[in-house]
Amino acid sequence: MEGVRMKILVRYAETDQMGIAHHSNYFVWFEAGRTELCRAWGMPYSLWEEQGLFLPLVSAQCRYKAPLHYDDEAELETALAELRSHSVTFRYRLLTPQGRLAAEATTEHAFVDRQGKLIRRGHPLIQRLEALARESCQV
Amino acid sequence: MEGVRMKILVRYAETDQMGIAHHSNYFVWFEAGRTELCRAWGMPYSLWEEQGLFLPLVSAQCRYKAPLHYDDEAELETALAELRSHSVTFRYRLLTPQGRLAAEATTEHAFVDRQGKLIRRGHPLIQRLEALARESCQV
Amino acid sequence: MEGVRMKILVRYAETDQMGIAHHSNYFVWFEAGRTELCRAWGMPYSLWEEQGLFLPLVSAQCRYKAPLHYDDEAELETALAELRSHSVTFRYRLLTPQGRLAAEATTEHAFVDRQGKLIRRGHPLIQRLEALARESCQV
Amino acid sequence: MEGVRMKILVRYAETDQMGIAHHSNYFVWFEAGRTELCRAWGMPYSLWEEQGLFLPLVSAQCRYKAPLHYDDEAELETALAELRSHSVTFRYRLLTPQGRLAAEATTEHAFVDRQGKLIRRGHPLIQRLEALARESCQV
Repeated sequence: MEGVRMKILVRYAETDQMGIAHHSNYFVWFEAGRTELCRAWGMPYSLWEEQGLFLPLVSAQCRYKAPLHYDDEAELETALAELRSHSVTFRYRLLTPQGRLAAEATTEHAFVDRQGKLIRRGHPLIQRLEALARESCQV
Repeated sequence: MEGVRMKILVRYAETDQMGIAHHSNYFVWFEAGRTELCRAWGMPYSLWEEQGLFLPLVSAQCRYKAPLHYDDEAELETALAELRSHSVTFRYRLLTPQGRLAAEATTEHAFVDRQGKLIRRGHPLIQRLEALARESCQV
Repeated sequence: MEGVRMKILVRYAETDQMGIAHHSNYFVWFEAGRTELCRAWGMPYSLWEEQGLFLPLVSAQCRYKAPLHYDDEAELETALAELRSHSVTFRYRLLTPQGRLAAEATTEHAFVDRQGKLIRRGHPLIQRLEALARESCQV
Repeated sequence: MEGVRMKILVRYAETDQMGIAHHSNYFVWFEAGRTELCRAWGMPYSLWEEQGLFLPLVSAQCRYKAPLHYDDEAELETALAELRSHSVTFRYRLLTPQGRLAAEATTEHAFVDRQGKLIRRGHPLIQRLEALARESCQV
């Protein structure tokens, strides 16, 4: 399974008084990674919402391995981890500028409509996700 | 003109590596102050949006006078400063736990509908604001 | 084991365009919960850092059960979950204003010094944590 | 006077329930702009702090002209606006993807040491700023 890579430049506002990037920001970066992954798939996430498909979080977990500092250029890899009947899971690896593992994480997202009601696999965008998931497993 | 006062407890995530509360958070706190002011007026801001009146920012300015630190309990005073035909301005005073002036600020907000189109004074909630503005000027 | 409870009022800036509180903010709230727990223990977290003991995250996990909205007054319960030789784990339960479970989570924190080097149990504050952990297990 | 330009991609977490980028994030972006400007000058801001020169805010002001939305690629221009004996002012112009003015702003920063005490022009980095300011005025 192939993911996308992007650079994350740690912003000053993302640091805390410990002098490292605050852990809550990692989830903001992972979301930026999902944005890039959807774009790489040719289906920008803004399109998903326009077509009535929203992806609120069901769960998130992150293991913090090495701290990141102001102005560090980290590398974030984002990939599809698992597709289920009404949710999708992404996984993330974040590397320090020196190439060490800074964090690894997963987030699981429900498929819901604008009112927050669960959507199952019928939605055209979910069908495209299924095709992507099949391709990535054939390797 | 009377404002409302509320406590703001500086969160760890709001600090930066300089060891003080990051300046961008002040605008988040001022917004919390507006929430309390609207509640004190008997017209919670969530109601404004339900009734199709949104208040995006037109301008913001803040003077930072003394830093705030993690776990400081600051006092925020929020008041109506000026009402114009299609905007409203709030003003803020933020005090350190020792009672020194930490910051003073104003924010000006347009009256717009859900699509971002300007609304003028006809809206019932704006009329209530006008009544509030008149009362506060009679002193 | 007894925890502490506190109110979390969802700020406007904490919402996203889905109209719910953004998932990254939950970790900021959990941190506010830890601040209250340490205060309830009589050892404010600012004191920990003054005494050279820092608690960066090792891992975090959260299950999101029900969304929170702007101006919702959620209730957050924070408790000590586990104490190990060089880390401590806290657990959190967040309730909606209607008393439904909004989220449950844990965060694990390393004991490190100002330079980020692991500290083991000798530190006086860690010894006080051990005493607290023993008390809470005697029930 | 020449500034630097950089792209700002609006993150999902930066939106609010009005469906636009929350105004507090603009100050985080302006700070990212200052980081790029200092880098372009050959004196990265992390170096400033290493050499004991910190730049907390004295004041900030922003005029919001057009909203930005999720995944918008805005262009940010950051430039030195004014250098005084113990403060420096930067100015910012932020453009929408369509090239319209989204916001213009200034921030003024004090020169202080690690303890927050004012530093005057003697510091080598401030002298380099003075040289930069002179150059930009000769045009």
